[in-house]
Amino acid sequence: MSTPFIITKASGESETFSLEKLRHSLLKSGASPETTEDIIEELERDFYSGMRSRTLYKKAFSLLRRRYKAQAARYQLKKAIMELGPSGYPFENFVGEIFKAQGYTVEVGVILQGHCVRHEVDVVAENETERILVECKYRNTPGFKCDVKIPLYVHSRFQDIEKEWRKLPGNHHKKIQGWVATNARFSGDAIQYGECVGLQLLGWDYPQSRSLRKWIDEDRLYPLTALTTLSKSEKQRLLEKDYILASELVSSPHCLEILNLTARRKHQIQNEVRQLCGNGD
Amino acid sequence: MSTPFIITKASGESETFSLEKLRHSLLKSGASPETTEDIIEELERDFYSGMRSRTLYKKAFSLLRRRYKAQAARYQLKKAIMELGPSGYPFENFVGEIFKAQGYTVEVGVILQGHCVRHEVDVVAENETERILVECKYRNTPGFKCDVKIPLYVHSRFQDIEKEWRKLPGNHHKKIQGWVATNARFSGDAIQYGECVGLQLLGWDYPQSRSLRKWIDEDRLYPLTALTTLSKSEKQRLLEKDYILASELVSSPHCLEILNLTARRKHQIQNEVRQLCGNGD
Repeated sequence: MSTPFIITKASGESETFSLEKLRHSLLKSGASPETTEDIIEELERDFYSGMRSRTLYKKAFSLLRRRYKAQAARYQLKKAIMELGPSGYPFENFVGEIFKAQGYTVEVGVILQGHCVRHEVDVVAENETERILVECKYRNTPGFKCDVKIPLYVHSRFQDIEKEWRKLPGNHHKKIQGWVATNARFSGDAIQYGECVGLQLLGWDYPQSRSLRKWIDEDRLYPLTALTTLSKSEKQRLLEKDYILASELVSSPHCLEILNLTARRKHQIQNEVRQLCGNGD
Repeated sequence: MSTPFIITKASGESETFSLEKLRHSLLKSGASPETTEDIIEELERDFYSGMRSRTLYKKAFSLLRRRYKAQAARYQLKKAIMELGPSGYPFENFVGEIFKAQGYTVEVGVILQGHCVRHEVDVVAENETERILVECKYRNTPGFKCDVKIPLYVHSRFQDIEKEWRKLPGNHHKKIQGWVATNARFSGDAIQYGECVGLQLLGWDYPQSRSLRKWIDEDRLYPLTALTTLSKSEKQRLLEKDYILASELVSSPHCLEILNLTARRKHQIQNEVRQLCGNGD
C-alpha cells in the first residue's frame, strides 16, 4: 500500500483509500502495532482497484480474528493438553505422535519382559539405530511437579528391561534409551538425577532448547483439544476413537464423520486446523 | 485342682468346690475350652483352703477379662498401626524401634548424599557389620498395596547412595542393604522385583516367616496406640512427643507425666502394658 489507491464507498462513490483510517480502526480494536502492519501488508496482496470499502474492512478484520484465534489456540496449548484427560491414555497417544512425526515407528502401551519382572511401557519408539522407551506422566491439575521418585523408578525399570533386551540377538548395535515425558514440570533433583544417569526428561518447559511446548509449537503438533471450533464433547468423542492431533482432522477427513457435522461446520473446523497447523500465520 | 478342696460360700458355710461348675461358667461366658483350662490351672496356684467362693470366681473372671483384653489388643494391632497416622513419621519412628530392639543403632529421617543427588532416608539402622537403609511406606487406609514402582525407585535410590558410600574409607567391609517397610501389602510383582534385585521387603504379612505382624508379636513391640486404657487424644499427645512403643510407658514412666493422670489411671495403663508386653499371658 505504498501508493494511494481508489476504493468504492458504500454510497457507490469512489475515493482515495485512507490507510490511516484502517490502521486506526485496527489499533482501536486491540491489535498490536506489529499485527496491524502485518494485516495491512497481507491486504495489499489481494487489493484491486475499485474494491468496495466494506469488503476491504471485512477482510482486514477477518484477518485479525483469524490471527487472534490462532494466537489464542497456541496460548491455550497448555490448557488443551490438560483437556486430554482425565486418564493418561490420550497423552500417551499424543507422545507417540510426536515421535512418529520424527520418523520413529511407535507402539503405545507395550508389555516388555525385564530381567526381574514384566513392565508396561507407555510408548516404545524405534528406528534403525535407536529404541526409546517412554514413561508418560500426565497430570490434569496445574502446578504438579514430577519429583525425583519418578526418574528413580523409571531408571530401574529401564535397566531391568535393557538387561533382558541386550540378551536378544541383533540388539547390540542399537542404542536404547529411557525417557520420561510429562505435561507437568520436573523438580530440581529429578532433573539432576535424570541428567546424571542419562535418562532423557521431556517436560512442559524442559529442556529449554526442546521442551514439550517448543516441540509441539515448532512441529505444529497441536492436539485436537486446542481447536476452538469443536465442543468439549466432540473432542472427547474423537479422543475416544484414538484421534489426537488437530492435523488428523484435515489429513484424515473421514474421522470427522463420527460427529455428524454439517458441511459448513466441517469446513470451519478444517479451516481452523489449517490456520493453526499451517505455516501461513 | 486335681484334689477336691473346700471353699467358703457367701452364706459362710463350707463346701467342696465344684470344678465343673466353674468350668461351665467360664465356657458359658464365651471362653474357649483351652482358655478355660489355662485359667483353672492359673487359679490353682493361688488357691488356699477356705477361700471364699466369691473371691475365687472373681479371680477366674478377672483372669478371663485380662486375657481377652490382651487378646483384643493384639487382634487390634493392625488398627493400632493405622492409628499412628495421619502422617508417616510415627511409623518411621516405630520401624526405627523394631531395629533398635535388634541391637542396631538407629537414625530416623536422614539426608544422605548419593552419587547423583541427595536423598532422604526414613530409617538408617547400623551395627558393626551392617548398614540398613529403610524406606517406610505408611498407609492409613485399608486395602492399599505397594506396587512395583516403590521397590523400583527405592532400588535406584539405594544404588545411588551405595555408589557414593562405597567411596568412603572403612566402608568396604560392611554389608549395605536396602529395605522397604510398610504396614500395607506388596503386589506380586513388587515382591518378585524386590527378591530379584536383593531388596528386603517387610510388609504386614510378608515375608511369612518374619512379617511386620510377626516381628511385632514375637518381640512384643506393640505401639502405644494398641492400648485400650489410653484415649485417642492421649495417644496423639504421646506420639507428638516421639513416644511410640507401649513398653516405653513402663520403662520410662516419666513420659506419662505429660498426660496429668491420676495415680489410679497411671497404674491401669501400666498394668495394661505389662499384660500386653509381658510374657505372663
